[in-house]
Amino acid sequence: MGKIIDITVPFSTDLPLWPGDPAPSMDYMKCMAGGYRCNVTRLETGVHFGTHLDAPCHFIEGKKGVDELDLNVLVGTCTLIEIPDVQKIEVVDLEACNIKKGTERLLIKTYNSHYWSQPAHEFRKDYSAITADAAAWMVDFGIKLIGIDYLSIQLFDDQVSTTHLVLLDAEVIIVEALDLRFAEPGNYRLTCLPMKLVGADGAPVRALIEKE
Amino acid sequence: MGKIIDITVPFSTDLPLWPGDPAPSMDYMKCMAGGYRCNVTRLETGVHFGTHLDAPCHFIEGKKGVDELDLNVLVGTCTLIEIPDVQKIEVVDLEACNIKKGTERLLIKTYNSHYWSQPAHEFRKDYSAITADAAAWMVDFGIKLIGIDYLSIQLFDDQVSTTHLVLLDAEVIIVEALDLRFAEPGNYRLTCLPMKLVGADGAPVRALIEKE
Repeated sequence: MGKIIDITVPFSTDLPLWPGDPAPSMDYMKCMAGGYRCNVTRLETGVHFGTHLDAPCHFIEGKKGVDELDLNVLVGTCTLIEIPDVQKIEVVDLEACNIKKGTERLLIKTYNSHYWSQPAHEFRKDYSAITADAAAWMVDFGIKLIGIDYLSIQLFDDQVSTTHLVLLDAEVIIVEALDLRFAEPGNYRLTCLPMKLVGADGAPVRALIEKE
Repeated sequence: MGKIIDITVPFSTDLPLWPGDPAPSMDYMKCMAGGYRCNVTRLETGVHFGTHLDAPCHFIEGKKGVDELDLNVLVGTCTLIEIPDVQKIEVVDLEACNIKKGTERLLIKTYNSHYWSQPAHEFRKDYSAITADAAAWMVDFGIKLIGIDYLSIQLFDDQVSTTHLVLLDAEVIIVEALDLRFAEPGNYRLTCLPMKLVGADGAPVRALIEKE
């Protein structure tokens, strides 16, 4: 296979934080400077911070957790489309991309990716995301995994969370805060591996694409 | 490629804890039962808990952190060998496996893997691991990634940590606490993806093997 492109934002505690969420922390629980034989970092974070995925139980009680997600969906051929200058991604924007029938994994590159050229920026509310209608269109199309390049698949002012509910009810895996700056539209093999957190509503992921 | 075998131990807070380390925790920072629109888990853990890898700066100040590890080492062909009934793995045990010249990624299946049939067991000190001489042999052989099926690549009573030092000084990536119960000896494609923790000495990983 081709060159690996890492589409994961490096995890540091100064990445943008969802408004109101407690800040993450990373510090040493043991360190050589303190007389220990080795350095051991301790990490404290919400599981939807940085590049991560949402499991169905994020919005729907009793649905699947991260550890139950199908690896055969998390790994496989994906299509990357670019919708560069639209904030509110509608059905018409998706239709204009002529996505090939049978596509199961879709990554959407928007202007959001540029935000990651300064990873430590303040949270932006004007990010690009998809409407509830576009979410329903994806479910009908047969999409099983959808990735986007900012912290939520739904618009910031979507106060009823219909976009999340439509996707998660259909068990579509949602991957958020991807850095797609260095990926051109086309087909790739996606490998999107979350921490195997038992029963959790989300998890940090490491996500790669490679030309097949 | 063939069927994916997940060699990651599911992450829950009742996995064995390295003696003396603080316990991890997973709880809700928001939950639907508490009136929120969604569930959001907060995770607190040492980065060497559960299935994880060690970066060179775990034992050697100033060396590479997790985010600097080469994805072309973390992904690629690996050889899985089985050494089922030896606690202290020596050079002679490795030589007996007739590992093919040119092998860069090596996974060692030992009796440790059986411990994962009860993931929530108490920490065992009698786990199988490699001696410092065996570590030096691996470096000479050209191994770039070594995986084993309990929480440390070095024996519990190795108080000077030579095994870790030899491997990490040569920038060999060490993957620990793999569950190899369902993997037979042979060659596979390994995908071992850590959280992209900036500068960290270790990270949780999700690790898969597939028959090529």
